[in-house]
Amino acid sequence: MLGSLPRTLNVSFILRSVFEREQGLNWLGFESEKDQVTQRTRLSVSSSLSSITTLAEAQDSGERIINLDHGDPTMYEKYWQQMGDKTTVVIPGWQYMSYFSDISNICWFLEPEFAKQVVRLHKVVGNAVTDGRHIVVGTGSSQLYLAALFALSPSDASEPISVVSQAPYYSSYPSMTDCLKSGLYKWAGEAQNFSKEGPYIELVTSPNNPDGTARHSVVNRNKGILLHDLAYYWPQYTPISSPADHELMLFTVSKSTGHAGMRIGWAIVKDKEIAKRMTKFVELNTIGVSKDSQIRAAKVLKAVSDPYEHVDDSEVGETFFDFSYHSMAERWKLLREAVEHSGMFSLPKFPPAFCTFFNQVSEPQPAFAWLKCENDIEDCETFLRGHKILTRGGKHFGVGPMYVRVSMLDRDENFIRFVKRLSTIHV
Amino acid sequence: MLGSLPRTLNVSFILRSVFEREQGLNWLGFESEKDQVTQRTRLSVSSSLSSITTLAEAQDSGERIINLDHGDPTMYEKYWQQMGDKTTVVIPGWQYMSYFSDISNICWFLEPEFAKQVVRLHKVVGNAVTDGRHIVVGTGSSQLYLAALFALSPSDASEPISVVSQAPYYSSYPSMTDCLKSGLYKWAGEAQNFSKEGPYIELVTSPNNPDGTARHSVVNRNKGILLHDLAYYWPQYTPISSPADHELMLFTVSKSTGHAGMRIGWAIVKDKEIAKRMTKFVELNTIGVSKDSQIRAAKVLKAVSDPYEHVDDSEVGETFFDFSYHSMAERWKLLREAVEHSGMFSLPKFPPAFCTFFNQVSEPQPAFAWLKCENDIEDCETFLRGHKILTRGGKHFGVGPMYVRVSMLDRDENFIRFVKRLSTIHV
Repeated sequence: MLGSLPRTLNVSFILRSVFEREQGLNWLGFESEKDQVTQRTRLSVSSSLSSITTLAEAQDSGERIINLDHGDPTMYEKYWQQMGDKTTVVIPGWQYMSYFSDISNICWFLEPEFAKQVVRLHKVVGNAVTDGRHIVVGTGSSQLYLAALFALSPSDASEPISVVSQAPYYSSYPSMTDCLKSGLYKWAGEAQNFSKEGPYIELVTSPNNPDGTARHSVVNRNKGILLHDLAYYWPQYTPISSPADHELMLFTVSKSTGHAGMRIGWAIVKDKEIAKRMTKFVELNTIGVSKDSQIRAAKVLKAVSDPYEHVDDSEVGETFFDFSYHSMAERWKLLREAVEHSGMFSLPKFPPAFCTFFNQVSEPQPAFAWLKCENDIEDCETFLRGHKILTRGGKHFGVGPMYVRVSMLDRDENFIRFVKRLSTIHV
Repeated sequence: MLGSLPRTLNVSFILRSVFEREQGLNWLGFESEKDQVTQRTRLSVSSSLSSITTLAEAQDSGERIINLDHGDPTMYEKYWQQMGDKTTVVIPGWQYMSYFSDISNICWFLEPEFAKQVVRLHKVVGNAVTDGRHIVVGTGSSQLYLAALFALSPSDASEPISVVSQAPYYSSYPSMTDCLKSGLYKWAGEAQNFSKEGPYIELVTSPNNPDGTARHSVVNRNKGILLHDLAYYWPQYTPISSPADHELMLFTVSKSTGHAGMRIGWAIVKDKEIAKRMTKFVELNTIGVSKDSQIRAAKVLKAVSDPYEHVDDSEVGETFFDFSYHSMAERWKLLREAVEHSGMFSLPKFPPAFCTFFNQVSEPQPAFAWLKCENDIEDCETFLRGHKILTRGGKHFGVGPMYVRVSMLDRDENFIRFVKRLSTIHV
């Protein structure tokens, strides 16, 4: 299943106009910033045009705090507004009251319609093998990460199994792993330094959070158990090379469709006993997963897949991956131009690759920017905080403080304000 | 705020007719049972009349497995069907996408409308003090139980803190507590045998699951930390004596309104630091709680409270606590008559007490029956399984196998089938 070709972007023009205006008069001639940016109004203009509108709204006197510390995916609100009622759910008070969804399934709290749409979307996108696999739903992929640790850890070991990941790694992995001082598993840090004998769990996040690189396991020893976090393996972020086919893979609606508030993730699991143990964990942890959110997630995933399978052709509009791919492309272009304009920072370069979904060569455009401060600035997080830009510093990810992680998924006006402010930071 | 007086019940007549027909012809003359009982159709008849209808539907040839092992609160579906669209939620695809609900609140993922309706309902019912307390929302009260253990455990202790509860205790407490072999806390069993020096956490479930008794702490030593699970402290189950006023209290929609599939619970917490630590746990565990379910829960709680505060008087219908009180009263009467008819079992007796909500003396009518097999039957769970009735045996609750826990909250036809079959079990 192929997506459509990307449109030509007119971002350079947009950005140039931003910078020119920035350096002339104060932005749009106002001294104080306009605090009330109208959000959540229905936008029916094209993504480029709406950015111009947003640029005009995103005035920046440098005073407002720009918080890009979290990966809150509010960028996607605009798309779902454009879709109108297509993904509106209506749930009567007497529905979904039971604990149970499908007692014939190993994962007895998995709503069949959600499972169906998960499998369908993976087939549409071609990013994961689902045939013959078990789906386990979780309260976000965070819960499934913990469920996977529980399921993969030997229950009779004399000491906790080591959990490792190549740095920079997702900043929450250490605290999530060690939160309860579990006797089953223990965070053991940077995978490349790991030399302990015996079994271990290696977390492979690909594309990686925070730096967007494609990842493979690095420890590569016997007795290694791999856990693949594929939250960002979607065509808007990275070229889809082939359907991922690992023992245990985690996905989430937070990053695929932007519905973080649903707290819905899913695991694709080869081994039946592992799926059973993960289900047991979710049972002991939260006795299942919100049915309301599963139903809503099913509807959203269905709306993503439908146009690619020519269902409901009458009112297709822009497809989800077209919208999100173009949004990310535009943002990365704006960011790279801002970085170049400033001269104080650098960004990773990503090799282009063929994307089987878009049927063309494209470049990764990650959900986070892994920004490096140059010019002998040692602590990039503190430096940017001085400019009222909140990011997450490298030390949280197991590397040095010259790096920060910046969310690329915030609402337009906040993102544009960020690139504008970044571009004006000079030596 | 007072509820209304209970109606006179006509359950003896109903039950007599059940037993008489049972012992004559096969129930309604059919040999095989009617498997397809129409559920989820709107019922507008009174609760007694609907039971008669259900009795006719609940044919029992003794072959069908009656599963009352879990406390699945499907009994409540009928009420919410009667309420029609009053609690229907409509959520557009672009709403509640962010991780965040209210960043000014300690519990940053708590939807303000849900918090408001929680406080309002407690004021209406008079079952818990909320003024000056912190509300922490959880993915069911199970997650909040774990969050409370995390928050209450000393983080710097040399060994895990002991967690105790008076038997019979909720069967999941031991496995939930020890699931991850935490170094912070450890299940230490029956509270009455607990003699270890130093700090401990005592779980007080009142009314108690499984046996329905009102509970107070029993260890009563210095350094004891109390955690109150008040999931069943609602007027349909027990007389409300006064607003509960403990350090940390857990509630859930699963048992209050019957919406188990939402996975929504809440904690009422006195101490700010404890509320912060609980919030941190939920953040590390699931990065918040489904917004969709919080919004839906808010709507349901609002519909419960509205009639008691004379909002929307025009179409009140039966109030929620009237319905649920009468349903439980009817069920307990049917169960006690079936037990008497059989002669093989016994049930706890509960002292009547004044209920400040209904403004009258009433008896507890718990969500579970704590049934004891008499006549030298040693293993009641196995004995009942022989009659294709699935229950949960006493050993799961830390006591002997002559007891079983039976859900009183299943759908009418299943419950009626159960009492009918129970009544026919003789020596």
